[in-house]
Amino acid sequence: MEKVNLSEKFNLFKELWTPKIVGELNGQYVKLAKTKGEFVWHKHDTEDEFFLVVNGTLTIKLRDKDIHLDPGEFLIVPKGVEHKPVSENEAHVLVFEPKSTKHTGDVESEITVKKFDWI
Amino acid sequence: MEKVNLSEKFNLFKELWTPKIVGELNGQYVKLAKTKGEFVWHKHDTEDEFFLVVNGTLTIKLRDKDIHLDPGEFLIVPKGVEHKPVSENEAHVLVFEPKSTKHTGDVESEITVKKFDWI
Repeated sequence: MEKVNLSEKFNLFKELWTPKIVGELNGQYVKLAKTKGEFVWHKHDTEDEFFLVVNGTLTIKLRDKDIHLDPGEFLIVPKGVEHKPVSENEAHVLVFEPKSTKHTGDVESEITVKKFDWI
Repeated sequence: MEKVNLSEKFNLFKELWTPKIVGELNGQYVKLAKTKGEFVWHKHDTEDEFFLVVNGTLTIKLRDKDIHLDPGEFLIVPKGVEHKPVSENEAHVLVFEPKSTKHTGDVESEITVKKFDWI
């Protein structure tokens, strides 16, 4: 049982839109992601997702509105809701979601990650 | 679906060791807690708990060691593991745990909260 320092973990990788696993509890993963540019529109039919911005800013586009997240702000995207994360500049984000969650939901894209790595 | 600003939520309450619910996903609650002084030794037989320090410092005492958490650091305490959170000065903590989690596990104490409030 070891603590996790978010800054140290973010320093271990540079890839964008490639969440890394840093913790596991109750069938969920804690992941860290670096975001910049546009992700794809997608949804998760059975999993809610939690996004907490640690550094930078992240916009979660929904079909009916955009939600802008600054550091220290989080959004929970309920299952079934289409969303598209976008970051104008690089942002660092903590994600909390069930282990079963697919990266881009039912959409297959060039950026789809099929196996998440632990760091 | 609204974003949550952690600072704004922490400004809404002053009670120590009285976690407030600020989000719900996948059968889990996101809670915010203010800690100062000593909590009680306890464990949760079936729930893992996630503690992320937002401000201040929190020490999670375990039976065999102490783990000190600074802002931006988290610890996952697995189910069944006895622990005792302690803060010399006030700390602000984000907690992630199943909705079924009892405040002080199988221990009843003066500080036990039986019903958690949403803020």
